[in-house]
Amino acid sequence: MHPLNPNPGITVGQLGEIELIRRITEWLGSVNPPSPEGIGDDCAVYQPEGGRPQLITTDPVIDGYHFDDTVPPGCVGAKLLKRNISDVAAMGGRPHRAVLSLALPATTGLEWLRDFCGGLRECALEYETLVVGGDVAQTSGPLTANLTLIGDAPSGRVLTRRGAAIGDHLLVTGELGGSLKGHHYRFSPRVKEGVWLAGLPEVRAMIDLSDGLAKDLPALLPQDGQAELDWEALPIREEVPREPGDDVADRWVHALCDGEDYELLFTLDETASVPDFLRRWQAALPTRVTLIGSIAHLPEDATEAPPIRIPPGYPQLKSLRAHEHFRTARPHRGYNIRLKQSPPNQAP
Amino acid sequence: MHPLNPNPGITVGQLGEIELIRRITEWLGSVNPPSPEGIGDDCAVYQPEGGRPQLITTDPVIDGYHFDDTVPPGCVGAKLLKRNISDVAAMGGRPHRAVLSLALPATTGLEWLRDFCGGLRECALEYETLVVGGDVAQTSGPLTANLTLIGDAPSGRVLTRRGAAIGDHLLVTGELGGSLKGHHYRFSPRVKEGVWLAGLPEVRAMIDLSDGLAKDLPALLPQDGQAELDWEALPIREEVPREPGDDVADRWVHALCDGEDYELLFTLDETASVPDFLRRWQAALPTRVTLIGSIAHLPEDATEAPPIRIPPGYPQLKSLRAHEHFRTARPHRGYNIRLKQSPPNQAP
Repeated sequence: MHPLNPNPGITVGQLGEIELIRRITEWLGSVNPPSPEGIGDDCAVYQPEGGRPQLITTDPVIDGYHFDDTVPPGCVGAKLLKRNISDVAAMGGRPHRAVLSLALPATTGLEWLRDFCGGLRECALEYETLVVGGDVAQTSGPLTANLTLIGDAPSGRVLTRRGAAIGDHLLVTGELGGSLKGHHYRFSPRVKEGVWLAGLPEVRAMIDLSDGLAKDLPALLPQDGQAELDWEALPIREEVPREPGDDVADRWVHALCDGEDYELLFTLDETASVPDFLRRWQAALPTRVTLIGSIAHLPEDATEAPPIRIPPGYPQLKSLRAHEHFRTARPHRGYNIRLKQSPPNQAP
Repeated sequence: MHPLNPNPGITVGQLGEIELIRRITEWLGSVNPPSPEGIGDDCAVYQPEGGRPQLITTDPVIDGYHFDDTVPPGCVGAKLLKRNISDVAAMGGRPHRAVLSLALPATTGLEWLRDFCGGLRECALEYETLVVGGDVAQTSGPLTANLTLIGDAPSGRVLTRRGAAIGDHLLVTGELGGSLKGHHYRFSPRVKEGVWLAGLPEVRAMIDLSDGLAKDLPALLPQDGQAELDWEALPIREEVPREPGDDVADRWVHALCDGEDYELLFTLDETASVPDFLRRWQAALPTRVTLIGSIAHLPEDATEAPPIRIPPGYPQLKSLRAHEHFRTARPHRGYNIRLKQSPPNQAP
């Protein structure tokens, strides 16, 4: 009997993360306002009296889940800040203040902690963020560092996950997949890109890809929408593993499911000119951006239509598994996005 | 060899908490501005463009350190929010937004978590705070719930720990000691009291008593100051344990060292009339408040003068130990405030 499960009933490990968050949201009731003021987007938005809109987000790194001893401590400190910055960037925001809460095993080396703080400091300098406070506690468990980040929206506009419509173009920054080859801590959160995008009225919705395209894309879709991807256009990272026996479909699974891409996925109004948008992007920003598809109507006859359509003639993708975060299986992240299986060279 | 202490060098367990925070502050360098904008007070203060001053603080509750299975889950949820609210109250602030980061063992009962969230919700309703976001992760260690709280200062004035002067009166709300008898989760953070005090210019400095008077009081003293307590006046909680063989001095040790009082300690300008202040307090607030002493000059001949003076004729207090937080010894909290030992009935 676990002391925090006295009766004993269902455990959190038996629930998917999505369902767990749904329950917590329900239990919080009226103290959690509707998104984007409450739970449900990359950050929560609030408006201080007389000031511009503020964004707040919180994310931890936990030893064995988000890093291990192969990751240099400075990179762990930077990753902690960067994963939070990526959430602020996803709404068109710019970070400004962070607080840090450390739960440390007594055996943590002071040198490790010094280098962790050094990496955090260098990253904070780069992204013009102050680290203004925190807490230090001891734990009998793994090192757990939690950071809460506040940002604001320089363009005055906050981009949410809602706002996309049927017909919208889907675009993504950078490249996807292969995060375990080092990208999961070497990534650059897309702050400049996010701020620039929030300033364009034709950009309608945005999210950062932390769990992978397969899990994150559906959050951008209107209720009657389905993503039609241009599978050949997907920007797959060079480092995506090629293992003996892999077929080409495995590379797509990596691109869609590895997670920790920390790229921005956004939609562009159907009536906007994509070539014109790309020209303006290239004049303003050095980052790669790719048109990867569009939002179509859900097929009317579909009883269990998947959020991402597999076009006819493409190899089966057996199952786009949920992102299981870094290294260790997280048994409670049981959310699966299953693509409908369609035999090759045959319309679904 | 611990993986996060590869060389192996000094561990965080070998350092006191105060020293550890000093090092972290040093490692963060210029990304941590001077207090109260950075580390060093109950909250960090920041001023959004055009808005009123904002306060930010973060504190966890960890299973086995801040609660155990004898504490009802609803009280754990409420305690998590209340310990953060107490930090906001300590600067004359009022809470408005919170985010919650949960690191949960897979074996955590869903029922336990529901009741935890219920307690958090009721407390948030009572203190008019929204819980706007968070994160859920899995951990192999103890349940760790971290909350970050934002508040603002309705009086427009933020009361810091600095600002006290020689001659100031020392006052405290409520009662001290015996927190383990249930007060550590049944306390009421002193928000109304803090806001009221911040509106009075004769109130000069304030702190909340989370680690106990012995550890927290010194933070209010000017460099050349020493607290002279009226030992008979100390408001000692009824529940302070009386064990066989205890002498009266043991009750003072409890009042000064148990910690988790979550009362406000503040100073009043020497020239202010204490009776007049107490009359106005009683007209405005139902809470007990007690004049417990004043700030005197450090004796000139003192080589190692303690921050709290033991008046002549009083029994020895062998050592005012550091607050060890709830239940479990925290080996790295090695900070000791040692009172000079003076034989009874003899001037020090």
